[in-house]
Amino acid sequence: MNTTQEKPYAVGMDIGGTNTVFGIVNARGEILGSDAIKTRDYEKIEDYIDAICEHLKPLIESVGGTDKIRGMGVGAPNGNFYRGTIEHAPNLRWKGVIPLAQMLQDKLGFPVALTNDANAAAIGEMTYGAAKGMKHFIMITLGTGVGSGIVIDGKMVYGKDGFAGELGHVIVHENGRSCGCGRKGCLEAYCSATGIARTAKEIMETTDKPSLLREIPIDSLTSKDLYDAAVKGDAVALDIFRQTGELLGKAFANFVVFSSPEAIILFGGLAKAGDYIFKPIEEAMEANMLNIFKGKTKLLASAMKDTDAAVLGASALGWEA
Amino acid sequence: MNTTQEKPYAVGMDIGGTNTVFGIVNARGEILGSDAIKTRDYEKIEDYIDAICEHLKPLIESVGGTDKIRGMGVGAPNGNFYRGTIEHAPNLRWKGVIPLAQMLQDKLGFPVALTNDANAAAIGEMTYGAAKGMKHFIMITLGTGVGSGIVIDGKMVYGKDGFAGELGHVIVHENGRSCGCGRKGCLEAYCSATGIARTAKEIMETTDKPSLLREIPIDSLTSKDLYDAAVKGDAVALDIFRQTGELLGKAFANFVVFSSPEAIILFGGLAKAGDYIFKPIEEAMEANMLNIFKGKTKLLASAMKDTDAAVLGASALGWEA
Repeated sequence: MNTTQEKPYAVGMDIGGTNTVFGIVNARGEILGSDAIKTRDYEKIEDYIDAICEHLKPLIESVGGTDKIRGMGVGAPNGNFYRGTIEHAPNLRWKGVIPLAQMLQDKLGFPVALTNDANAAAIGEMTYGAAKGMKHFIMITLGTGVGSGIVIDGKMVYGKDGFAGELGHVIVHENGRSCGCGRKGCLEAYCSATGIARTAKEIMETTDKPSLLREIPIDSLTSKDLYDAAVKGDAVALDIFRQTGELLGKAFANFVVFSSPEAIILFGGLAKAGDYIFKPIEEAMEANMLNIFKGKTKLLASAMKDTDAAVLGASALGWEA
Repeated sequence: MNTTQEKPYAVGMDIGGTNTVFGIVNARGEILGSDAIKTRDYEKIEDYIDAICEHLKPLIESVGGTDKIRGMGVGAPNGNFYRGTIEHAPNLRWKGVIPLAQMLQDKLGFPVALTNDANAAAIGEMTYGAAKGMKHFIMITLGTGVGSGIVIDGKMVYGKDGFAGELGHVIVHENGRSCGCGRKGCLEAYCSATGIARTAKEIMETTDKPSLLREIPIDSLTSKDLYDAAVKGDAVALDIFRQTGELLGKAFANFVVFSSPEAIILFGGLAKAGDYIFKPIEEAMEANMLNIFKGKTKLLASAMKDTDAAVLGASALGWEA
């Protein structure tokens, strides 16, 4: 029997374009040990798998060996839950369809489940974070891209093919900005880190408003920079938050008519800007909300610590692997 | 025990702004008897309930009495599945929140479940129609309004409050046409019967293209008129189909990133225009589709007969009541 008592730990792993982070987690959501490798260092997927297993080994030994591990959950870009594969991920070196879950499982000897990173974040939030006890919510991850994980009736929405919940690629502006996906006007083209930098550039190039942001190279502009400037009353920073929030709020009003969630939960650097971003989102969301949904959907910040969220989120999937 | 054998029939009822239709259905989806009353004839909800029960009585007797009825399903505008209520329906005379399911149940003596009309159509399609065997699909009803029923993992999506799936009220044009809901630019403002009539009016007023449609009073223009004109090569009719289809197709591409359905199923007069409407929808849908979903989502016409669909759809809910 695989009871939690006999197998009290799960492994969580998050694959990012730059770093791959993994850790051992107990049922209370405490990370007992973690490590990381550079994702880009491995040209061949086999070498990458070997490196993960090698780094995981001492962590697993420290909690009593593989017998103590219930399973492993992996959050990966373009991760497919049904098939345990990473499929055509633009940010990774391995092209085509990679059967990552199976490869890891064969080497590690315990079950491995895989999903995309935003879904892993949503599962983490539901298990350990702001969505505890919620049956219906939408997780929006604001980072290098804009991702989403949708939970309905307490279950992740994977859709027919395992790829449901790509809300960063809802088209919000016809013939709008080019998006990395090859189309135009996606939410991600405006509200991802690079999208926000583009907004900043547009504002600074088309106005002569003085701004602290003018001293920061546009490509290294972070949500933290925006926040710091906004606190000092910087008009450009405030305008960026307002424009970005308005777009998100309008998009969220459209998401609500789909699944009528209890909450929309924001994760990522931008979500830490507090009222600067939450106020404009809430205003636009309510102003554009269909009557029967008005005032019903909470807008929340993730309750997960940034550094732990990716590993915890993925580990939550490991319990069910 | 309530086996199908002992209780082999369900009652289906559809409440429309004009007519209320009901019938007795067997497990194979055959309507054994049906009747209708005028919805607007009853100022007091109690009188309306009495009239329904009175008209249902002979139908129920004809199949062996209430003992033979498994349950009743009702499709109603602004119907709330969780609460069995009709809430603030703009097209009905009874204001506020009407506990219709409970009222009927008390009078009839068998379980009554209620949902909105588009959800009832989706359940009907899943039980008897084009979505048989599908786990993930979206039903779009194109009629006086634009409604939707979303099925994920074989289950209707009701959301937190029972009102999920109002895709007719996704905003597709910022500051677009006024919608009956009080906002602007909803899909319904373009693709409902009145929306399409507005498009027709716009085209005919802004161009001098000759058209058979110019002879039809705009308020009585039907999908059938459009189809008949299109068959004769009428440029205005073809243009209306193209514009309407393009809008629907773009909206559908955004719906697909949400739940990655196997199919989108169209119901209503417009869905009978065949390629005239399906072609432009499919083209716009695929042109605007995120890469990973391209070519994956079928666009289908409902397989339910118009006259039966409402009663059958609602009855399907009656089996689970």
